Amino acid sequence: MSAVPVNLAWRDGALHILDQRQLPGDVRYIECRRWMDVAAAIRSLAVRGAPAIGIAGAYGVALAAAEHAAGSPAYAAAVEALAAARPTAVNLRRAVQAAVQAAAAGGDPALAALHRAEAEHREDAARCAAIAALGAELLGPHGWVLTHCHTGALATGGVGTALGAIAEAHRRGRIDGAYACEARPLWQGARLTAWECAALGLPCRLLADGAAGGLLAAGAVTAVLVGADRIAANGDTANKVGTYPLAAVAQRHGIPFYVLAPSSSVDAELCAGTGVVIEQRDPQEVLRPAAPAGAAAYNPAFDVTPGALISAIITEAGVSRRPYRFGSHGEVDGDA
Amino acid sequence: MSAVPVNLAWRDGALHILDQRQLPGDVRYIECRRWMDVAAAIRSLAVRGAPAIGIAGAYGVALAAAEHAAGSPAYAAAVEALAAARPTAVNLRRAVQAAVQAAAAGGDPALAALHRAEAEHREDAARCAAIAALGAELLGPHGWVLTHCHTGALATGGVGTALGAIAEAHRRGRIDGAYACEARPLWQGARLTAWECAALGLPCRLLADGAAGGLLAAGAVTAVLVGADRIAANGDTANKVGTYPLAAVAQRHGIPFYVLAPSSSVDAELCAGTGVVIEQRDPQEVLRPAAPAGAAAYNPAFDVTPGALISAIITEAGVSRRPYRFGSHGEVDGDA
Repeated sequence: MSAVPVNLAWRDGALHILDQRQLPGDVRYIECRRWMDVAAAIRSLAVRGAPAIGIAGAYGVALAAAEHAAGSPAYAAAVEALAAARPTAVNLRRAVQAAVQAAAAGGDPALAALHRAEAEHREDAARCAAIAALGAELLGPHGWVLTHCHTGALATGGVGTALGAIAEAHRRGRIDGAYACEARPLWQGARLTAWECAALGLPCRLLADGAAGGLLAAGAVTAVLVGADRIAANGDTANKVGTYPLAAVAQRHGIPFYVLAPSSSVDAELCAGTGVVIEQRDPQEVLRPAAPAGAAAYNPAFDVTPGALISAIITEAGVSRRPYRFGSHGEVDGDA
Repeated sequence: MSAVPVNLAWRDGALHILDQRQLPGDVRYIECRRWMDVAAAIRSLAVRGAPAIGIAGAYGVALAAAEHAAGSPAYAAAVEALAAARPTAVNLRRAVQAAVQAAAAGGDPALAALHRAEAEHREDAARCAAIAALGAELLGPHGWVLTHCHTGALATGGVGTALGAIAEAHRRGRIDGAYACEARPLWQGARLTAWECAALGLPCRLLADGAAGGLLAAGAVTAVLVGADRIAANGDTANKVGTYPLAAVAQRHGIPFYVLAPSSSVDAELCAGTGVVIEQRDPQEVLRPAAPAGAAAYNPAFDVTPGALISAIITEAGVSRRPYRFGSHGEVDGDA
């Protein structure tokens, strides 16, 4: 296991969330004793990464079930607020619904939801391990890869998705290191990926998001690996803003472009990426560091990469190749 | 004319350079009385933009000719240091050489170089006006455009290149406004383009560099306009890092991609962009805002956009279209 601090821990009736906004400077936890604390942590990106926010949401249901009677309007409102704390990832709503169903199945609702959240947490760790093993097989025999945003342990319940596979490939001696886009406006690459790579002993070179095009053109990387917030049935993938241009340029140079995510990120009821709601965030995230007072900004959190640009989609169920035709409810046509 | 402060002014035997690193916070000038001050200002990006650094370099020769005897080793070293202060733009070396030739032609060398620098300054203003007029004709009849980095008055001896054309199109009522990439790592878009647009009354929306791909995919812009630091005979264009992915994505969506630059940016002796020396800058520019201590970075200042992705190249001599075959010494096969 890695030397990366635990991002989510249930202890003494509270969910302790590592505040990722304070990294890499401070390792500080937010103690969530009420469901509202969890919803606020998700909304504010104290916890982020599609799998991690799903797990946090499930723990949030356990807190909601302890605060409010199951079936009460307050409980229903809490559940809906948790599920809607961020709009793009499908994992959050799914994990919240699973915890709600567990709470409604009999016995102590809060305890049942907690057990479901803990199971979700464990299952995600197992999914990450499977994704990392499958992804590592696709890489190498040497060279550097490129990744975007942050998809490591902090973003999941296990070793991560794309970054988990990169770390696994490095441990197996199949790659030499990873270039990481800094991921403006919230610097997840600079703050989190660089920090997690250092903790893992994985050589990492940061670059401005715009510099990735020239890097790919120069033949400096052998593959691009990213995570996913939501994958449509045709493989169209919503992921951190800046993913789509990486895929467009990688295709021009024949560089494999891989999406790695748990199958819970697949939303097979969504035919294509045009149906994804793209979260628009506070313009101040863009404006804060350098813009003059009064400037305006456009700040989408995600973009959509067409499935046609994605060489393979790797979930815990296997490696899927173009053309993608994901069945309903996350069923995956993988070959592994 | 615009309300943008003058970037370069010769007064009382010194070149006064607006320190663009302090913008938008402070409007502060560096008084250069020695050629070394000019070289340092170019190297440190106090003055930036390929046309502006050419003009500054020519003024620098006037200072060098006042400090050192023409033909002395000190003078030769000064001239070479000015020409090499930044490696990628061809304008700098050209303008320095022109001033050196003027100084050697007879009369007072310093005065002759100064007159050549002032002429270069005036000529660039005229080139900018011609580029702006030609570029504005290509835009509209309405909608928003996208630009990258900063290509306005601060970067040139006149109204600018790409941003000059955008401003001219807006004055003519042909466009509604401009999206501007922030241009990490040095924020020229956020600091300079947003500020200059405000001074011009031109609506501007900033975005993270990675967000441009989704913006283009969404059909939100009618054209992309950028400047150039160096253009090869086949149209391959070295420009601010992050330009190439914009062109790659624009092509996928059939959005016109225009390069606007003085013909002095055309290096017809360079057959293709593979011959361009890409300046690598201090990794701290990337690391400073957010990365953990000890992190590494890759920080190229430019990338190269293939001519095949460029819909038209607009210089003061006219509008050139694919395939590009620029003749030697900046001769342009424009049709205007």
